[in-house]
Amino acid sequence: MSQDPLVIFTPSGKRGRVAAGTPVLQAARSLGVDLDSVCGGRGICSKCQVSPGYGSFPKHGLTVAEDALTEINAVEERYDRIRGLKPGRRLGCQARIMGDCVIDVPAESQVHKQVVRKRAEVRDITLSPTVTLTYVEVAEPDMHHPSGDVERLLAALAAQRADSDKAGLALDFHLLPRLQKILRDGKWTVTAAIHDDGVTPPRVIGLWPGFFEGPVHGLAVDLGSTTIAGHLVRIDTGEVLASSGLMNPQIRFGEDLMSRVSYGMMNPEGAAEMTRVVREGIGTLVDELVTEASIDRSSLLDTTFVMNPVMHHLFLGLDPYELGQAPFALATGTAQRLLATDIGLSVAPGTRAYVLPLIAGHVGADAAAVALSEAPNLSDDLVLVVDVGTNAEILLGDKSGVLACSSPTGPAFEGAQISSGQRAAPGAIERVEIDPVTKEPRFRVIGCELWSDDPEFAEATAGSGITGICGSGIIEVVAEMRMAGIVDAGGLIGGPEATGTARCISEGRTYSYLLWEDEDRKITVTNGDIRAIQMAKAALYAGARLLMDKRGVDHVDRVVLAGAFGAHISPKHAMVLGMIPDCPLDRVTSAGNAAGTGARIALLNREARGEVEALVRRIEKIETAVEPRFQEHFVAATAMPNAADPFPILRSVVTLPDVTFNAGPSEDGTRRRRRRG
Amino acid sequence: MSQDPLVIFTPSGKRGRVAAGTPVLQAARSLGVDLDSVCGGRGICSKCQVSPGYGSFPKHGLTVAEDALTEINAVEERYDRIRGLKPGRRLGCQARIMGDCVIDVPAESQVHKQVVRKRAEVRDITLSPTVTLTYVEVAEPDMHHPSGDVERLLAALAAQRADSDKAGLALDFHLLPRLQKILRDGKWTVTAAIHDDGVTPPRVIGLWPGFFEGPVHGLAVDLGSTTIAGHLVRIDTGEVLASSGLMNPQIRFGEDLMSRVSYGMMNPEGAAEMTRVVREGIGTLVDELVTEASIDRSSLLDTTFVMNPVMHHLFLGLDPYELGQAPFALATGTAQRLLATDIGLSVAPGTRAYVLPLIAGHVGADAAAVALSEAPNLSDDLVLVVDVGTNAEILLGDKSGVLACSSPTGPAFEGAQISSGQRAAPGAIERVEIDPVTKEPRFRVIGCELWSDDPEFAEATAGSGITGICGSGIIEVVAEMRMAGIVDAGGLIGGPEATGTARCISEGRTYSYLLWEDEDRKITVTNGDIRAIQMAKAALYAGARLLMDKRGVDHVDRVVLAGAFGAHISPKHAMVLGMIPDCPLDRVTSAGNAAGTGARIALLNREARGEVEALVRRIEKIETAVEPRFQEHFVAATAMPNAADPFPILRSVVTLPDVTFNAGPSEDGTRRRRRRG
Repeated sequence: MSQDPLVIFTPSGKRGRVAAGTPVLQAARSLGVDLDSVCGGRGICSKCQVSPGYGSFPKHGLTVAEDALTEINAVEERYDRIRGLKPGRRLGCQARIMGDCVIDVPAESQVHKQVVRKRAEVRDITLSPTVTLTYVEVAEPDMHHPSGDVERLLAALAAQRADSDKAGLALDFHLLPRLQKILRDGKWTVTAAIHDDGVTPPRVIGLWPGFFEGPVHGLAVDLGSTTIAGHLVRIDTGEVLASSGLMNPQIRFGEDLMSRVSYGMMNPEGAAEMTRVVREGIGTLVDELVTEASIDRSSLLDTTFVMNPVMHHLFLGLDPYELGQAPFALATGTAQRLLATDIGLSVAPGTRAYVLPLIAGHVGADAAAVALSEAPNLSDDLVLVVDVGTNAEILLGDKSGVLACSSPTGPAFEGAQISSGQRAAPGAIERVEIDPVTKEPRFRVIGCELWSDDPEFAEATAGSGITGICGSGIIEVVAEMRMAGIVDAGGLIGGPEATGTARCISEGRTYSYLLWEDEDRKITVTNGDIRAIQMAKAALYAGARLLMDKRGVDHVDRVVLAGAFGAHISPKHAMVLGMIPDCPLDRVTSAGNAAGTGARIALLNREARGEVEALVRRIEKIETAVEPRFQEHFVAATAMPNAADPFPILRSVVTLPDVTFNAGPSEDGTRRRRRRG
Repeated sequence: MSQDPLVIFTPSGKRGRVAAGTPVLQAARSLGVDLDSVCGGRGICSKCQVSPGYGSFPKHGLTVAEDALTEINAVEERYDRIRGLKPGRRLGCQARIMGDCVIDVPAESQVHKQVVRKRAEVRDITLSPTVTLTYVEVAEPDMHHPSGDVERLLAALAAQRADSDKAGLALDFHLLPRLQKILRDGKWTVTAAIHDDGVTPPRVIGLWPGFFEGPVHGLAVDLGSTTIAGHLVRIDTGEVLASSGLMNPQIRFGEDLMSRVSYGMMNPEGAAEMTRVVREGIGTLVDELVTEASIDRSSLLDTTFVMNPVMHHLFLGLDPYELGQAPFALATGTAQRLLATDIGLSVAPGTRAYVLPLIAGHVGADAAAVALSEAPNLSDDLVLVVDVGTNAEILLGDKSGVLACSSPTGPAFEGAQISSGQRAAPGAIERVEIDPVTKEPRFRVIGCELWSDDPEFAEATAGSGITGICGSGIIEVVAEMRMAGIVDAGGLIGGPEATGTARCISEGRTYSYLLWEDEDRKITVTNGDIRAIQMAKAALYAGARLLMDKRGVDHVDRVVLAGAFGAHISPKHAMVLGMIPDCPLDRVTSAGNAAGTGARIALLNREARGEVEALVRRIEKIETAVEPRFQEHFVAATAMPNAADPFPILRSVVTLPDVTFNAGPSEDGTRRRRRRG
């Protein structure tokens, strides 16, 4: 008696013997190989496509004969004729194993395929969606064995599910009134969207008569104080079909979070009003994304949300007043698994919503999402992750543990509270260089690739004009002023004599540096601007230092800058200002919108939800507001690094002139002293 | 070293040794004694009251010293002063066990107390409610260990729950926006209503600041085609606080179920319209009951519903058109665990709804509720349970198994389709006797205790008048006519000569029997009335016979008549008509509104829900519409029993005259033959 055929699946390497005549799909399932199928092997969905190999496979010690699989059958021929089958491909449910064979499962046939991320230092996302489609044939009613349509549907679905997932499947109540018609329209075949997040009981949340190819979609939302950003993705591939952002309409109740908390406290219906408008805003975002991606709204079945604690409470309909005062008590901090309609979204009634957990009263689900995306908890070296916004969320850790805090940087890094500051938009100065000898600047503005000393610059920027300085521009110009010896470590701008440039002009009691002017206006950096940046960077640095103290270290191995702002600032200039601790410049990287990425990971991978919840529980939370050392660090950090400060790595790269200026032309006699950091 | 004190609890008899100083409540819990407590032993709720015994207990071999328990303490003194403690009672959470003792747990201190039912042949109801109250002290927020109010509330509740119930407790989302205020209003104490049906995950569904004494309430609804009846009960005691009924407002779409199914098929929005009005009707019922019982609507937290399949589908928002034709496919038949707001009830957002399971396309949740109440599956002898309405639901079984079917009796038993028929209301004839010699009748009407031959009858009934014959009256008068020889076994009424009474009057082609007349009107029983009753009773009898065939028996040990109608008909008369099989008359009992009782059992005992679901799965369903033997039995059963029929028990009690009449005065030559049963 000859042995059963040996089948080897690649790329997994899983192998085993199966009875001759076993379909490839069935062999894959019995061997635990990740091979997709929506239709349960009925030759309808084509998700189980495989690429059999023939000939010699010395690595596997195997030679595969041409007849190792059954010949292409009528189902495959028909599928190839109508839809087209790539050369060499077979339908895994139709091809049967007759002899030893090597079967490759292409990436698109895997349920748990990888979504590759562009950055080398982070993990790829493994697809493991909460919502999957299943096509089934449902038993017709039999009056001698009476049972409901629901019960027969669920039995058919359970029969097609893995044993471990059979229990507890139920139908969302809102689908019940439509079920009879769907089953009969589909002639007792139906495609069900099943939501199974591994935590809440699995539920049928969408139904289509007959075979519905999909795809179904998900939405990941980063709900910021200023901006609401959303990504609409295919749940089965992870592909981002549309991205959009809009201003948070709550801004009319206050630019910053504490203004909104106050608005809620001063107006009886204030919190409810803010809840309503932010939900409306997300509704607008959904409308835009659905239109842009040209998808059927009913196929949008899962959503994830990240946001800071105040936005979290307002979004969920909770009054955030407790977050405005110690002990900063959260109404709830754990992850929320809800119906999207519970939070006022106008989507399909079965659409689910997952809100990532908060870390603490000041450290939100956005920070949790950054932690999920950047995974400091999996890092071998000690990493500092900084997400800079109106508040900076700071994470410090490695495999042995992670600390978190929030630090009130204020809006200076976003261009607010800066005399010529503005949001990042065409015409805003974003890059600056100052010649250390001539003290003359050159710069670039958003929307133009040329530097300002290029002859064609004026013409190229004629459209937008030169309108102000954005957040990353203000960092650069202040750092360049420091390196050029125009500003001292204490933050004072020198006068024209002391600096040797007429660009230092008197403005009241202090000097300003003239960056640019035309007939109509001047763009200057005032000493007030320097002070605002000093306060902001001191808060950020003090938060990082506090975590380093708690951890008992005086340096970090690498720094990750997250957030839209973090994506644009220059590590060198940030370090010249003393925003971040001393660190090799090539170990300072930008993570882009890591909070949004975290929301997208939670959308595409259900296990990641459990991961971030476990991580948040383990993170050690530090409340800066009541830590005396935070104040000490803050005061110490208002000055910028100079030659005597502990920034050896920075000093090996840049020159930090050891200058000290008087306060300014109208100095009233008490000479201001710079503090040493 | 002396032994730990021995404590014996009565009435359970549970005993064990506990460390000296153990509170009685804690001892009870550790020994598995059913002793209530809402406040977790804080001396607030007084639910854990016990009656310690002192002196000699020869049965237990114990003498209890006066100091077996600690003395009454300040908490108990205060409670006694303010609320009053019955003599001899102690608070189980305050009294500590210092020596051997015997502690009685009075019924009102047991969670799982019995609700005694009046009838000897049925089980008492053991209270095991799905909704219970728990008072807890919640940890205050601590910014150094940030956690949400929800998480601290749930931790406090879990700490107070039995180990087996700790897992998975969560807060209903609708409570979240109110939680912060409730916790602070209650100074970090709160009373939670927890819903735990043992099947769905346990949830906090209601919250009150501080200690809320309760009670919370439940509503059991029997949703009939004609009448909607509801009972409002205290969930903690089972006490019925109010009962009410109203006409099903769907009646305007059709008196009987098939008319309503047709209305749904003929009108595009017909089913949705019927759903809306029946939900409105139940809303009215809720309003009436809440007002009548003077309870706070927010304390109504659980509801149960029973109804036939068509009402079930319309109530849940499902089009019942499939139930109008073979194969009578149910959209769903299993029990539904819903939010009451899902089915349009205007109650607290946390209120739950439990809809009992259907048995088959024609056998509803009302029949399932009858099965739960009458428990044929637990019966040692073979019992036939008949619930008579527009359809009759019939159950036959004992411990070895239960069969069920539905039989289309039509509305004759409810007084419809009867020439002088009417619903049961004051003035309706409900009891009739006919003298077998003189053929003269006497009768009673609803609302008067006197018989019509009483000299004071006319005066006593002057208010209501004599308005018609109700369902139980028509049974009696036809049966009495049969016994008096006025009608033959085939159902023909004899003429005045053949019967010897001038009350048999010619009416078209047949005779009628004159029951009563005054100047204005006559109340007669026409031969058409007899035919309607024959059809109805034949359907009922044929259903019962069909089940007896399936079971392979030719008699039953006992008969239970359920339903409002069943409560009023006389077993003897029902048997004279041949409605029910031959059975000793004293083994024919009335169960009253058994469907409503079943709904109430499911409301008060969560385990009963699992029981009825399991029972329904096990019941063997017989579809009468497609059983050829049903038609045979039906045709055979249109005649009434006579001397030759197999009703030996009946014939030992009553005389069945062997008369045969001609069809009537206008007989057209073809003489009608009565069929022999």
